[in-house]
Amino acid sequence: MARWRPGSTGRLQQAAIELFTENGYDATTVADIAARAGVTERTFFRHYGDKREVLFAGQYVFESGFVEAIADAPAGTPVMGLASRALDAGCRALREARSQEQARARHAIVEHHDALREREQLKLAALSRAVAGAMTARGIADLTARLAGDVVVSVFSTAFARWIAPGAPADLIALQRETLAELTRLVGTNSG
Amino acid sequence: MARWRPGSTGRLQQAAIELFTENGYDATTVADIAARAGVTERTFFRHYGDKREVLFAGQYVFESGFVEAIADAPAGTPVMGLASRALDAGCRALREARSQEQARARHAIVEHHDALREREQLKLAALSRAVAGAMTARGIADLTARLAGDVVVSVFSTAFARWIAPGAPADLIALQRETLAELTRLVGTNSG
Repeated sequence: MARWRPGSTGRLQQAAIELFTENGYDATTVADIAARAGVTERTFFRHYGDKREVLFAGQYVFESGFVEAIADAPAGTPVMGLASRALDAGCRALREARSQEQARARHAIVEHHDALREREQLKLAALSRAVAGAMTARGIADLTARLAGDVVVSVFSTAFARWIAPGAPADLIALQRETLAELTRLVGTNSG
Repeated sequence: MARWRPGSTGRLQQAAIELFTENGYDATTVADIAARAGVTERTFFRHYGDKREVLFAGQYVFESGFVEAIADAPAGTPVMGLASRALDAGCRALREARSQEQARARHAIVEHHDALREREQLKLAALSRAVAGAMTARGIADLTARLAGDVVVSVFSTAFARWIAPGAPADLIALQRETLAELTRLVGTNSG
């Protein structure tokens, strides 16, 4: 699979994704993951509470990518400008954490396991709320902020699904912008 | 609380919502619910597999409301016209199943319990997919259909949250239309 990342968390994540793919999530133990990554179980537990956390550990950094882009935007940036900056930044945070190949393998694991799929849904719901919160912190009305949070999550997750499809282009940012343009076109037809 | 509905499923739902509110979800048993509804446990299990199902039993009818409105729309109805018909119809299906007061009580129970909140998120994700599926069945492109599914769920769940807020107006359809108009305005500003 993909090249090894240097630190022990990178090795643990890669090892977990490989083992979950090869043997299934339920059959893989923390001991297996630590052994494959070449670290002790003690090292595993220094970084993660359990094996599920290995798959979701990047959530805070990922969410911060979106939120900070909104907080850092120039005063007067319109709501959709904030949404679009958040999408670009969130995408960059994701790309720093994972290769396209790793994202694809991780997604296949999550999709085939009920509890993991539920966890992933909650992650996206939390992302929508975090984006909305960053918007209201800039004085945007609650209703608009909530809808903008949903727009961001819809565009991100739709672009992400396209990106991990077999043979998809490698540029997630371009896919996101194209997806946002399609949403704008779709919803824009409603004004007439 | 609200008036009793005639059948035993209506009585069981009302009894469950009352008991979950009074004593908490975890502390309430199927026997408690059956007793409060004035039926036997056997009758309970004729309708529901477990106590969680009482809260989610309407999902199929609710989802069908959205999906059938899309399937039944006249040929050539534009995508946002389908979305708006689906929202009106889904809303009517919900209003037939529950009063505003019941919806509010049910939501408070679901929000305060992790497993129920996860289940609710999955219900909304499934609704988005069902709406998208009904759209692609009409020949709408996958990408557009997926985004339209998300638009419907975002508008529905945002309007629903407004509707169950304290002192909210009783007309969910009006709130949904207002919410859709706000989304149109928001996303529309992106074209400039």
